[in-house]
Formats: sequence, structure tokens, C-alpha cells
Amino acid sequence: MGKRLQSKILIFALITNVFTVFSYQIENTANIVNNDNIVSNVIHPKLILTAQGVEDIREQLGSIPIFDKTLAKVKAEVDAEITAGIEVPIPKDYSGGYTHVRHKQNWVILQKAGVLYQLLDDEKYAKYVKDMLMQYEAIYKTLPVHPKTRSYARGKLFWQCLNDSNWLVYVSQAYDCIYNYLTKAERTRLETNLFRPFADFISIENPQFYNRVHNHSTWGNAAVGMIGLVMDDDELIQRALYGIPGADLDRNAKDDDGGYINKDGKAGFLANIEEPFSPDGYYNEGPYYQRYAMYPFLIFAEALHHVKPELGIFNYKGGVLLKSINALLNLSDADGDFFPLNDGQKGMSYYTSALVTAVDISYHFGGQNPELLSIAKEQDRVLLDDSGLAVALGIKNGFQEPFNKKSINLSDGPDGTQGGVSILRTEDLELAFKYAAQGSSHGHYDKLSFSLYEKGEEVIQDYGLARFVNIEQKGGGNYLKENKTWAKQTIAHNTVTQNETSHFTGKYDIGSLHHSDLHYFSSENKNVQVVSAIEENAYPGTTMLRTMAIIKDADFEKPYMLDIMKITSNKANQYDLPFYFLGQVLQTNFEYKTPQTLKPLGTENGYQHLFVEGIASGNNDNSKLSWLNDNKFYTLTSVTRANDELLFTRIGANDPDFNLRREPAILMRRKNSKQTTFVSTIEAHGSYSPVTESAVNSNSSIKAVKILLDTDDYTVIAITSVKDNTKLFITANRDAMQSTVHKLVVDQKEFTWEGSFVLIENK
Amino acid sequence: MGKRLQSKILIFALITNVFTVFSYQIENTANIVNNDNIVSNVIHPKLILTAQGVEDIREQLGSIPIFDKTLAKVKAEVDAEITAGIEVPIPKDYSGGYTHVRHKQNWVILQKAGVLYQLLDDEKYAKYVKDMLMQYEAIYKTLPVHPKTRSYARGKLFWQCLNDSNWLVYVSQAYDCIYNYLTKAERTRLETNLFRPFADFISIENPQFYNRVHNHSTWGNAAVGMIGLVMDDDELIQRALYGIPGADLDRNAKDDDGGYINKDGKAGFLANIEEPFSPDGYYNEGPYYQRYAMYPFLIFAEALHHVKPELGIFNYKGGVLLKSINALLNLSDADGDFFPLNDGQKGMSYYTSALVTAVDISYHFGGQNPELLSIAKEQDRVLLDDSGLAVALGIKNGFQEPFNKKSINLSDGPDGTQGGVSILRTEDLELAFKYAAQGSSHGHYDKLSFSLYEKGEEVIQDYGLARFVNIEQKGGGNYLKENKTWAKQTIAHNTVTQNETSHFTGKYDIGSLHHSDLHYFSSENKNVQVVSAIEENAYPGTTMLRTMAIIKDADFEKPYMLDIMKITSNKANQYDLPFYFLGQVLQTNFEYKTPQTLKPLGTENGYQHLFVEGIASGNNDNSKLSWLNDNKFYTLTSVTRANDELLFTRIGANDPDFNLRREPAILMRRKNSKQTTFVSTIEAHGSYSPVTESAVNSNSSIKAVKILLDTDDYTVIAITSVKDNTKLFITANRDAMQSTVHKLVVDQKEFTWEGSFVLIENK
Repeated sequence: MGKRLQSKILIFALITNVFTVFSYQIENTANIVNNDNIVSNVIHPKLILTAQGVEDIREQLGSIPIFDKTLAKVKAEVDAEITAGIEVPIPKDYSGGYTHVRHKQNWVILQKAGVLYQLLDDEKYAKYVKDMLMQYEAIYKTLPVHPKTRSYARGKLFWQCLNDSNWLVYVSQAYDCIYNYLTKAERTRLETNLFRPFADFISIENPQFYNRVHNHSTWGNAAVGMIGLVMDDDELIQRALYGIPGADLDRNAKDDDGGYINKDGKAGFLANIEEPFSPDGYYNEGPYYQRYAMYPFLIFAEALHHVKPELGIFNYKGGVLLKSINALLNLSDADGDFFPLNDGQKGMSYYTSALVTAVDISYHFGGQNPELLSIAKEQDRVLLDDSGLAVALGIKNGFQEPFNKKSINLSDGPDGTQGGVSILRTEDLELAFKYAAQGSSHGHYDKLSFSLYEKGEEVIQDYGLARFVNIEQKGGGNYLKENKTWAKQTIAHNTVTQNETSHFTGKYDIGSLHHSDLHYFSSENKNVQVVSAIEENAYPGTTMLRTMAIIKDADFEKPYMLDIMKITSNKANQYDLPFYFLGQVLQTNFEYKTPQTLKPLGTENGYQHLFVEGIASGNNDNSKLSWLNDNKFYTLTSVTRANDELLFTRIGANDPDFNLRREPAILMRRKNSKQTTFVSTIEAHGSYSPVTESAVNSNSSIKAVKILLDTDDYTVIAITSVKDNTKLFITANRDAMQSTVHKLVVDQKEFTWEGSFVLIENK
Repeated sequence: MGKRLQSKILIFALITNVFTVFSYQIENTANIVNNDNIVSNVIHPKLILTAQGVEDIREQLGSIPIFDKTLAKVKAEVDAEITAGIEVPIPKDYSGGYTHVRHKQNWVILQKAGVLYQLLDDEKYAKYVKDMLMQYEAIYKTLPVHPKTRSYARGKLFWQCLNDSNWLVYVSQAYDCIYNYLTKAERTRLETNLFRPFADFISIENPQFYNRVHNHSTWGNAAVGMIGLVMDDDELIQRALYGIPGADLDRNAKDDDGGYINKDGKAGFLANIEEPFSPDGYYNEGPYYQRYAMYPFLIFAEALHHVKPELGIFNYKGGVLLKSINALLNLSDADGDFFPLNDGQKGMSYYTSALVTAVDISYHFGGQNPELLSIAKEQDRVLLDDSGLAVALGIKNGFQEPFNKKSINLSDGPDGTQGGVSILRTEDLELAFKYAAQGSSHGHYDKLSFSLYEKGEEVIQDYGLARFVNIEQKGGGNYLKENKTWAKQTIAHNTVTQNETSHFTGKYDIGSLHHSDLHYFSSENKNVQVVSAIEENAYPGTTMLRTMAIIKDADFEKPYMLDIMKITSNKANQYDLPFYFLGQVLQTNFEYKTPQTLKPLGTENGYQHLFVEGIASGNNDNSKLSWLNDNKFYTLTSVTRANDELLFTRIGANDPDFNLRREPAILMRRKNSKQTTFVSTIEAHGSYSPVTESAVNSNSSIKAVKILLDTDDYTVIAITSVKDNTKLFITANRDAMQSTVHKLVVDQKEFTWEGSFVLIENK
């Protein structure tokens, strides 16, 4: 049926008010008479579901198991809500409180009910959506801003515009789904009293929230753009893509998290793609926030792809949106939990619903990579749209392949020139090394920090954020003050703190001007994978070059980690390097004293939160610490001197609300040094079974670690196993070229190699 | 074939030295000429495997999956050891050290190789066993006692006779399996130089180890008895069953653990059944040590059943050995982990190999309870003998039924009159309540203590023991000094400490004279299950009556626990009642202060190991603490007064070797009280998901808990839910008869009920 004929039938139908439809396609086609009296044809749904997609899905229903299962679950959920009845309370609470939870639940159910109406063709769902939307419409116009005052941008339904934007992103989809179910008068009522004022409120009335480059704004942009696409409101669409025309914000204003609102004046959805994503797809705030931001990025992109294909949104900036999904999936441990870089809450994983969107969209629009199907299968649900159908068919046809995470180096910064993040993987060991830029307002002061995992369990932890997201009892579910006083501070991380002061003196203004730089990254040789990066700005006058390797050696049961932190300063300083091991101390090869009373290590910069549980002087060769965690053994072997202090610390001092986890670290303190190099290995070895009560390989396989040579050009570390084999790890501290041939005499032996590093037997 | 004919053939074979055998049964029949020249017929194997059993098993091999799988695994293990070669090092190390681990591995492999020889009829296994036994034979006679001196009964192969006995229990089986493979000369050599001296060493030469009632002695008795059965040495068999004739030990001597060696002069295997097991099958040291002792009890019983059926060992003392298996299986949480009563190491479960023995023997000799098959299936292996065959056939035939753990009350003491242990179970909640006797040298001073579990995870923990079993780095894998200074002390447990002194002033001599007494136990009504017990000797002049209930109420999401600790003393005391909750403090309804420096709570009796992390005064009605653990919410609601002190404590003070886990408690301190009652509820509620970041039902459902009445006769607790419904829990403090009809006026209302307690609506 041609469009002209469709139009004629529909005009006839409208005129006679006998809206009898003949086919699905007709049912989903409406004639909108614009204010300016131009008649245009708009097919609904068009935003996420499409008319064609709905037809395809209906045809396949019952024969696509994962899709059918998801649909059945969604139906059960929505049916239960319909039975329970609609509740649209007057907003009152913070996150976790009743009204917050209820409105959040409403957006979820509205979106799902809209989808059910389309896929199941059952009017009860459309009616439910309509009825609830009308209740929102009834209260919205007279609703004051939310009574809770903590946010820099208070919403109306929620305490922050961010959550209002979440609501609109979902509800736009619901509206699109029942668009044709509504009369024109109903649509006009909703658009005039609810949607348009809603979109204006979160944008024009809150430019400090909307008109910036930030994950909050991405939600705002997507919300405005999606309702704009449904309403065919070009002003809103333009505002979504490019920001508020002529908005002029105070460039020095800051948000609740201490980040600049809009320092450089950029805004809009495209700028939000441009800025935070590196060409490799790394998102500058880290994976936890990328996961959060992913949904509006992708769902709005999908909508734009459907309604404005001419924009080519999935090819924008070299296809970075799809690349970013790959980056995100690789920024997770063996269990699929994202590495908690910056303000990341532990336990968030690619099983979260936002990642269902990411995986399905990536599969459908990004070349149908069969490895994604195995994640989709584990997620055990799909999007109820075209992309979900594609995934369901892929799984049904058995196309999936294992998702094989490899070592990866991801650049940071809009142009990929602001440092980055590396993940080294060998067997069960994963090393996450961060040499990135500040990471926006959610960034931590942790240049050249790392965390280490075995089989998805933390060996050396990154603390993550100090927040219990959505747990009302803990500060309303929001950031706790300890996030600033502890979690963001340098001493909370596995990197060097100079003179008990955080990197960039803990100042966002300074930190956000700088980034570390990659020296080199190499993962070609699976047995010796190395990343090396340099930081020159965290402490003016001090340079830190950290080289970390994961080495697989026949003398060792499992791969081990080598860590070389080379510090050069123009003055003498105190350097503190902690390792936040998890578990129970088993043994040390050094004497230590445990104080009778526990006192804080310091008074500020995070030091006030550390109790000192043990004090020692380093051995004059190696200091060793073994511990037991989760029935596995670990050993840290460090090159130390007698005037090094070794401190056992535990988090939890000055923590009046028990907001911090009581977890240990061993901290190496070297005083009064201009130039120095910290060298350590960490071995994972053996296991213990409480059922058989047998301890296997509970001792370190390292006899000695030595620094044989340490110059501006080279550092040479000798690692001797208990089997008395010695390997030299040599890293070039200046020339990182892969092609350079180096020649070096160590201990009267000459070594020659090509490239930035070498692991070589010392016979 | 008659026995006479067999004998003739064999005599012929022996004479002609042409040992050609015609059938399996003949192969397994040997003629032994005793020293006194009497010829007796003895069929081997006979101890655990039997000649008939071997025939049956061989017939079924290949068609009994779980048996076949176990056999294949054992074969792979033994084959690998055979390839690696035999090592019989000169003994040198403590547990966890090389020689210890090697000799332990040897006993395991010897036993398995013997079985393989029988089942697979492959001589390489017999040869391996023979060769290794000959190496032991070569060193044994000249071997001095073990060089490590820590034990009260040093072994020869190991640092303690206990491990030597372990060795012999296993190796007797190996010897039995290859008995007929050996020439008489070889047998004589082994028996004369190895087995008989070995048996004498662990018994006659170490009566302080052998001649007592203790799990160590049970191993010793079984070792001597089993080798005696194989060798047909009646002296050893009698010594095993009844102890060393005429042995006279110092009745006041003590072992390494502080337990009396032999206060009452009882000894031998039968006494070891008689004494420690109650008629219900509870083992006085608790499930962890029962599990350890179970293997020698059952394996020697099986051997006696085979060789000396006239003893009727499985019917001894009312069939207590088989009953004890049922008790043991029920003394585990939802994951099968044993409750760590007394010196129990956490994580030990019924998946341990000793419990494979227990389950298979219980099934085979104890009426083929189909519920046992489901545990056997989870254990995923069986004994390679008749009982394992029975289990394998049961599983193959699909007979298994779910193992349904119910609430259970187990008496303690040889006559069942020395208190006991109760487990209350409702839905996912399990309460383990201990009102037992001292529990031998492994007992803790924890009268009326409890621990609480949800879905097999600890909610309120019992600390367990202070030991890292077989982890050499931690005190050689043995008991740490903190086991005595911390783990055994009363303050380490969820019960009342009076005047900062442990029960019985922490003296074993006093503690072992006494036990608590059951007041009543009721689990008939699944919605209100109660146990109540009284302790009158822990503190002379003070009586403690603790009544604990698990209540399922429609106003609550999950069942909750009610705890009433009623104390009556003849003088004013200070009472401390801690709850060792696990997890992170979420919220309190009382103000507390956290000290800047952490100091120990006291100087002795375990108090020296607790840091004080927070200090508060109780509210004048209820004090509430909510916490989050493993993504679940919990709330403690206690009836308090303003002069109660509430202390947040953390284990770890005065712990110079980091031997203790840094875990929290809330401690209620009531000073200067003669009579007082502590009343608390603990609710498990809701959950948190770090993936969806949603908190469900994170608040307590209790509005108020009140003591309405508290007399010598009755205690009445009112529990009001947030839905404003009030229930009264009334317990009779004196009359525990089920048949008594009580009448009580509370708040001018009259209540009438039958039995020791009632939960009743207060309208």
C-alpha cells in the first residue's frame, strides 16, 4: 500500500471518526496535523521499536527462546503492577525513599508496558500507560521543584534532574508505543502539560545540569532528544544534539561532586560523544560510569538511527559508540565485574540491564560479533526490540562463541593522547593499570595505580567509591563524605604518595589539566606482558615511571607480577607506597611490632583514616609478606633497605559512621630520598582446602629479587627462583622504541636485545 | 568348593611353589600357619573389602556411574604416584612440612593402591604397595621417636602418635588387600619388623595417648585393632577393644590441649563409643571433631562387622554409631558446613572424605535411607567397597530423596543427661544453640551460646577455633596461643560474661564437672520454635535461663529470632552480652562516639583481644542496630535502659602475629545488676543488588519490643510490628511441662494456654 493511499484512508477515518483499521501497518500509522497546518505522515512506533520490527518480532514469537523468556518475565512483572494499581505519589524522598523508588519503578513499568502493547497487541497495556501518564500530567504543571535540597540541579519528580531525565528517557519510549492508541486531544494534553514542560525544565531551566559534558547531561540530552523525536519537535531534537542555543554558564561553577559545570562551553549529545570517549572507546570517567552513561548513549543513538538515519550516528567519530562497548566489556574481571576505577561501586557487572542494551545493540548494529552472543546468553535476557530479536536468533542458531578477554591498552582523552588504561591478562591473573587523565569529577587522585585480580577475585584491591548506592541509611544512598576524605585520596590507592600529600594536592582544577603518558605497552609475548607509563605532574619536580609486568615462568606455579616504580625528584621527599592486600597475614621474613593502641597514621589527605597495626624496619635485601585470602596464598617480595619503614595499616580511623571497610594494607615508607626505585613482586601460589585441610604450595617460589642496575636509561631487576634460576628483567627507561637494539653490560656480562624491554636468563 | 578342598589345593600349591590359582575365590584364600603350628583358614581381603564384595563389584563395574567415576579418579591418582616413584623420607617436619605431607600422602596412596589391586586385578598395584611397605619396614625398627618435641605423645613417622595411628588405620587396609600377593616370608618380615612394633609403639609405649577416652585414642584403638584383624592377632584385637591390660596412668596428667589424659581409667574402642556419644548420637567434642573421629569409628566398626560379626558392633549402645551419623549430618548449615562448636575450623563440611565413609556406611548398614543418597550424590564419590557399591546402585536406580534437615534437639553425655545442642530451622534461618557439657579438651567456655545462619551464611557468628589447620606458617598448623586466650574464652561467644571472667573461671577442671540443662524444646509448631535451657554453675550464685525462639509472622518478610536471657544472682554483677554480627554497620537509633585511638577493652579473659570502636548509652526503650552483610540486611532490636553501655568492638588487639580475624561485635554491658533480663530480636530482611543497585526492604519490621512482665514464673515479651500488630511471647520460667495449663494476667488481660510457652495476639 502506497503512502498516498494510506493517507487517504486515514484522513477518511479521521473525518468519519470511524477509526477501523485493516492491518497492523495501518494501525501504526497516524496523521499528525501540525500547528502550522502542514499534514505529515509519522509512523509509530519508530523510536526503539519500529513498525517493521514489531511485525518481524510478532512473526517469530514462540520460536525464539531467550526473547520469549524475557517477554514472559516482563509480562508477568507488568501484569503484577497493573493488578497492584497505579501510584503517582507527590515527590518527597531521596534515593532509596518511598517516592523515589515508586517513580523509578513507574518509569520502568511504563516503558515495559508500552513494549507489551506493541508486541502482544493487547490494549490493557496501552490503557495502563495512558492512565498513568494522565496522572503525571495532572500533577506535573503545578509541581514545585523537589523539596530535598542537596542537588545542584533539583528535579521535580526526583531530588535531582538526573533522575527526572532517566524518567523521560524511558517514558518517551512508552509514549511512542501508545502514540497511535491515544487521540490527538490526549496527545496534545500530554505534550502540552507534561512532556514539553518536562523537557524544558531539565534543559532550559537547568542549564547547569543540561548544558555540559558529563554523564548527567547525556541523560538530559537523550531525554530531551527522545521525547523530541516522538513528538517530532525539531527544536527539542536540535537542543538535544547541540545544547541550549546561546546558553551562557558561569565557567567556574562546580557541581555536587566538585567537577566543573562547563569550563569549555561545550554541550549537547554530540559533544558528549566527542569529549569523554577516546578513539579506542574508553570513557573518561571509567567503566562504572560508562555503564551508567551507556544506556542513554545507545538508546538515543538507536532512536536517532531509526528516525534520523542521515545523521549516521553509529559512525560518528569513527564509530566510537560501538567501540566503547567493546572497551567496556574488556574493562571487567573474569566474573564480568567492572574494575572499580575512580568512583566505581564494586559488584557492578556486565549483567546489569544497561549492558543488555549495549551488548544487543553492539551485536545488531556492530557487525554481529558472535562472541557477544555468549555474554547475551549469560545475561539471559534481551532487549525487546529489533536488536534483541537479532541476538535471540543468533543464539537460537547456535552462532555464539566464547567471549575471550585479552590484554588490552585503551587510550584516554578525546584524541587518545591523554594517557590511558591497560589490562594485562595471563591465565587467571588480571592486572588493571591506570595512567589516565583525571576522569572528570568522578576521578580519583591515583596516577599510575593498579589493582590485581585472580579468577575475578581481588588480590590487591582498589578501594572504589565510598558510597552505598541507593541504600538510604547511608547518607541517602549518595556519596559519603569519606569519598572525598578517603576514597579519592592518593594514599587510598596502590601508588606513591609523596610527603603525605595527594597527587595535584588533591585539587580537581590542577588534576584535570594533566594526565600520565604511556611509555610502552606490550602483550604480544604472552609470557612477558609489560606496561610502562610516566607521570610528571602529580608532584611538580618529581617524575614517576612505573613499569609493571606479568611474567609466566616455568619455575613458578602461576604467573607473577613485577612492579618497578622509579622516582626521580629535584629534592628529597618521603615516599609511601601501599599495597592493599586482602586477607590474613600468614608470615613475614621481617620482625614487626604491633602497638597496644591503634592510632591514625596522619591527620589529612586520607592518612587520618588509616590505623597503624604494625611497624617494622625493612630487611636489607628483601622483605617478604605472605597472606591467605579466599583459600589461596599470596606473597609480596620487595627490595628494601634497613631504613625503610614497613607499616601494616587498616582502614577505619576517623570514621564516625562506620562508612569504611576495615581492610588492611602494607605500606612501604622511604624517607628523605631524591631518587629511588621501589621494586616488588607479587606471586599467587597454591591453595588451601578447609574440607581436606591440606595446604598446597603455600610458600613463595622467589629466593631473591635484586636491583642490579638502575640508571636514567635502564633498570635491571634480577629475579632468582627457589630453584636457583635467575632471570633478568631489563626495561629501557628512555627509549621505548620497539626497533631499537640495546646493548648493556651488567655484572661484566653483555646483554643485547631489541625493543623496550627484555626478560633474559642470567647464566 | 568346600573349605577342606580349598585348603588341600592351597597346601599343594604352597608345597610345589607353583602358585597357579583357578578362581578369584581361591586367589583370595590363604593358609596361615600360626606360630603355634595351628593351621587356620583366613580369607583376604576381609577387613573393608571382602572377597564376596570384590566379586560383586567386579561384576557391576562399568555400569555404576558414581562408583566407576570414583574408581577412575583413584586410578589416575595412584598411577601418577606410581610414575612419580616411591619416597619414604626420614621423618623431620611438623604438619604441613615436607616429610609430614609425604608420609600422609603415602598412607592415602597405599590404601588406594590396595583397593585397585583387588578391584582391577592388576599386580602393579600390589607390587607398589609391597615395595613401599618394604621401605617402611627397612627404616622402622631403627627409627627414633620423631625429632619434633611439641607433642605429649611423639610418633615415629610423625610428630605425634595420632598421625602414626592415622597411617596404620589406612595401611592395614592396604596390607589386607595384598596379603595373599605376598609370600609368607614377606608377611612375616612386615609383621615382625613393621606392623607389630608399630602397633606396640602407639599403644604400649604410649599409653598416655592410647589408653584414654579421646578422639586421639579412637584412632589409636582402630589402628591397633585393624592391623590385629588383618594379622589375626587376638592380643592386638583385645587391646584395641578394651585398652592395655593393667595400664596404670597418672589420673591427673594432661595432654597438649589441657585435657585430662585419663581421669577415670576407661580405655579401648568400646569405651570410646560408650563415653563421648550421647544416646542421640551427639559427640561430646562437637561436629568438627566428630567428623575427624568418625573415620576410625566407622572403618574399624565395618572391619569388626566383617571379621567379628558376633560383636554386633553396629548395634552397640543402641546403634549409636549409625545414629551419630544422622546427628552429625544435622549439625551442619544449609551448605553442609558443620557448625563450628568448640574447636571447630570453619569450612569443614560433609563433603569431606570422612563423611563419604559415614554416609556410605550409614546407608549400607543403617537401613538404606534414601535421603542419604542425595548427599552421596553431592559428594560425587563413594567408598570403593560394598557400602559404596550399595550407594552407587541406589543412585543408579534413582532412589535418592532430598536430605531434609529439620529442627533437632540432641542430648549430650553418655546417658544423654548432660545438656545438649539444639538446632532450630525455619525457611532459610538456622539457629544453633549450645547448652552442652564441657566438650572434652576441645570445649569452649560458652554456656548457652548461639550462632545464627541464613542460607548457610553466618549472621551472628561463633568464632570457631584459633588455628590454621595444616598451614605450617601459622604455628606449624597447630593450635595458636590465641585459641586459649581468645577462642575458648566466654567473651568470644554470643553469651553472657559476668564480671569480665569466663565461665568456670576458664578452668577445665571445673567446667568438665558441669553442664547446662534443657528447660524445654519445641519444634512441632513450625511458626514458633523454641528452645530454653538453664545454666547454674558457670558462675556460682548466678543462674542464667536463656530462651530462644524462631518466629514466623505474617507481618515479617522472613522469620525472626527472639532471645531472652534471664539472669538471677545472689549479688550485683556486671553482665556483658555480645553479638558477633558480620558485615557493615548501616544505622543505629542511638548516638555513639567513635574513639580517635583504639584501645583494648580489658586485660585478660579474652577482653585483651577486643578493640573498642564505638561507645554509646542505650536508649530507654529499644536500641537498634542495622547492618549489611553479603548484600542482605539485618537488624538487632534490644530492650535497653539509659544506663546500659553499648560497645562496638573489633577482634584483633594484642594479636602480635595477626592470628585473629578483624571482626566486629556489638556488646551490651549492664552494670551493677543482681537480676536482669536481656531481650533482643534479630531480623533478617531484604536484599541489595550491586548490579541493579536496588535495596529491597532495608528497614526493620519491628516497631517495639517490650518486657511486659518478668517474674520467677513467667517472662512476657511484647513484639509490635511496624504494621502495629502486637504479639505476646510468654515463656514459663519454672514449669516446662507440656501439659500444664497456665493462666496469667498481663496488663489487666487474662491469658490462658497449655504448655511451656505461647505466642499470642494482644488485641
